[in-house]
Amino acid sequence: MKNVEYWQPELETMPRQQLEALQVEKLRRTIDLCLQSPFYKRVLGERGITSDTIKTIDDVRRLPFTTKQDLRENYPFGLVGGNMKDAIRIHSSSGTTGNPTVVTYSRHDIESWANMIARSMYMVGCRDTDVFQNSSGYGMFTGGLGFQYGAEKLGATTVPAAAGNSKRQIMFIRDFGTTCLHAIPSYAIRLAEVFHEEGIDPRSTKLHTLFIGAEPHTDEQRRRIERLLGVKAYNSFGMTEMNGPGVAFECQEQNGMHLWEDNYILEIIDPDTLEPVPDGEIGEMVLTTLDRTMMPILRYRTHDLTRILPGDCPCGRTHRRIDRIKGRTDDMFIIKGVNVFPMQVEKILVKYPGLGSNYLITLDSEGDNDVMTVDVELDGLNTDVYPELQRMTKDIQRALKDEILLTPRVRLVKKGSLPQSEGKAVRVKDLRPGRG
Amino acid sequence: MKNVEYWQPELETMPRQQLEALQVEKLRRTIDLCLQSPFYKRVLGERGITSDTIKTIDDVRRLPFTTKQDLRENYPFGLVGGNMKDAIRIHSSSGTTGNPTVVTYSRHDIESWANMIARSMYMVGCRDTDVFQNSSGYGMFTGGLGFQYGAEKLGATTVPAAAGNSKRQIMFIRDFGTTCLHAIPSYAIRLAEVFHEEGIDPRSTKLHTLFIGAEPHTDEQRRRIERLLGVKAYNSFGMTEMNGPGVAFECQEQNGMHLWEDNYILEIIDPDTLEPVPDGEIGEMVLTTLDRTMMPILRYRTHDLTRILPGDCPCGRTHRRIDRIKGRTDDMFIIKGVNVFPMQVEKILVKYPGLGSNYLITLDSEGDNDVMTVDVELDGLNTDVYPELQRMTKDIQRALKDEILLTPRVRLVKKGSLPQSEGKAVRVKDLRPGRG
Ligand SMILES: [Zn+2]
Ligand SMILES: [Zn+2]
Repeated sequence: MKNVEYWQPELETMPRQQLEALQVEKLRRTIDLCLQSPFYKRVLGERGITSDTIKTIDDVRRLPFTTKQDLRENYPFGLVGGNMKDAIRIHSSSGTTGNPTVVTYSRHDIESWANMIARSMYMVGCRDTDVFQNSSGYGMFTGGLGFQYGAEKLGATTVPAAAGNSKRQIMFIRDFGTTCLHAIPSYAIRLAEVFHEEGIDPRSTKLHTLFIGAEPHTDEQRRRIERLLGVKAYNSFGMTEMNGPGVAFECQEQNGMHLWEDNYILEIIDPDTLEPVPDGEIGEMVLTTLDRTMMPILRYRTHDLTRILPGDCPCGRTHRRIDRIKGRTDDMFIIKGVNVFPMQVEKILVKYPGLGSNYLITLDSEGDNDVMTVDVELDGLNTDVYPELQRMTKDIQRALKDEILLTPRVRLVKKGSLPQSEGKAVRVKDLRPGRG
Repeated sequence: MKNVEYWQPELETMPRQQLEALQVEKLRRTIDLCLQSPFYKRVLGERGITSDTIKTIDDVRRLPFTTKQDLRENYPFGLVGGNMKDAIRIHSSSGTTGNPTVVTYSRHDIESWANMIARSMYMVGCRDTDVFQNSSGYGMFTGGLGFQYGAEKLGATTVPAAAGNSKRQIMFIRDFGTTCLHAIPSYAIRLAEVFHEEGIDPRSTKLHTLFIGAEPHTDEQRRRIERLLGVKAYNSFGMTEMNGPGVAFECQEQNGMHLWEDNYILEIIDPDTLEPVPDGEIGEMVLTTLDRTMMPILRYRTHDLTRILPGDCPCGRTHRRIDRIKGRTDDMFIIKGVNVFPMQVEKILVKYPGLGSNYLITLDSEGDNDVMTVDVELDGLNTDVYPELQRMTKDIQRALKDEILLTPRVRLVKKGSLPQSEGKAVRVKDLRPGRG
């Protein structure tokens, strides 16, 4: 038996049956609240749904889904079931098109959210003696104030550094004795570079723990961050619609993220059939809030792809673990009847030190057959050593087959020969008739 | 008798004698805490000062001053008297040269600070039904988190918009029904411009109250902001060393800022002699913290110039009022034995609609005499109407004499003929031998 410390032992290690009973009770309260909101009053009313509809946790499937579109069409307060007089904060996601997504919080909601983050930080060893630096943007973005309130609830000394200015971040880390840092993965790597440029060994600082989230990343990228900065890096999952960070968080086992099921109902569905997928299979994550008193959301389609990791966690927490986010349902493609996510391909490619980070998946038809080709840029490798390249190509092909269950063509191409993307990289080109 | 509502009636209207007794009690506790900090242990120890040194409020003058230099030399934690384990936040001022100024807060300090801001907002009519939008930068800058926590304590619905993106600010004001806004004066004017560009009348929104601070500004500028946005604008004073905003704030009388004397000891001194100046005279503000449990500061030389406004305030609050900040001691110059602040000159110039905002004060010697010349750019005015210009020049000269008690030369010059400044404007050129 491990000697594990918990922020809220009873809730974190609650037996599944009891946890599900708690979920049912909180879901019933949530539905009562929903019936006070203009949007849910209508959609639940049409279906004759009341809190009495829910007897067991499986009854959640009798509830309608909520989409981002619903949030946009009912902007800004159409999902609010609480009294706006009790609202103490509004957050919103930027949203490049259409109305932004807005979430409204009561004091209870802010405290409950802070508690989830405190619980998550405590889980990986962060205590009130730690110095926590937050390199998130503040303001409407939930990564700033979310972690700020959570870390203060924990009792850590907070350094609200906010985004940017890497030299200043490093100055704070050194001068204030920062031990824990919240950063998006790409910024963690940027910080490591600036440490190097400044001739400072990150291991000479007190930094020992990183919370990384918000950007999809592979386990290899996580290990790289850990090596570069000499820290343990823990995955964090959250989204504005579900408060912000603090929805799911890795424990010290680093074997997937415990999703806090006393505050959220977790479902993984097939994005096409909308039916649940078996544990262990990848699908779209669907979440229901259980602890909000201002703006409840039922069965929110996150469009994030992940899976429930089977088995118990040695840490003793009973809340189920989700795998790192595998991509977005929008990025998924189907070839020869198999669902494939670019992330699965990327995960293989990053294992080869000779490869650059730029790659492109092309889907095309040859006769009646669909063909998948992976072009990937070489990095430092000498392109003239033909047998070496051939061997590597075969290797990658085999590894990809193990991952995605079909064998793509693989081509190693010269650095700079693939299109460079500004912003979000285009990873998939679908040339099949009637697609793309 | 006015019907005034108070956030903390007893403390806000406490009779002076009782308020001073409270200050003495809190100052004694503050000195006990100081003696736990490395810096004050030394400087108080050298002078044999203990809490017993303080019998009456005038005994504050037996304490040594603290300067920004002291804070820098004892960076980052040399003034901390509390247990660092109890620290829950660090703020710092940017500081263009040398170490930044760092303030460390306990949970008590954060709560006390939030309470001062809630009290200030409540004083101008802000309630839990209001929607408060904060256009301050967040992060290490105290204007962001300071107002955030204060407005949440008040129970308002907060919109942590953060700095920049004026179109988005306006979208929030309209869509969220923002009633109260925190902005620096120049940004308030910028917002009014963008409202105009977008063809939106600010009076069509619910915005009714502005909190303006951080930048020195004249009463004319305030009135202009009020006209442009159709709001009441209240002055706010604060500085990182004293927590941040919430040190002094105007009441609905708009006749100077009540300085919260249950949390700070206020002194106005002559920056040369370091002796107190009589009430009503301009001098340097010196502040002592009374309610901090982590990092106390004794007699901090703010270098801000202001004066205590004589007389009681009709609102019934007994905390003394300070005038708007008149400038910095560094900007002050002495001519013919008179202390003059550029702000005094500016205050006169902005009254003339035909003048631009660019002006320059030149000090020079002619024989044994010091001569002060004020060059000011014309704005829309036709420079050819000589008699008109001559009349205006005389007018300005007379008004300046009333304000600064000596008669400067005044020259109205063509728009664009004075040097343009990037960033902080240079207002005074001292050509006298041995100066400037
Ligand atoms: Zn675990
Ligand atoms: Zn008053």
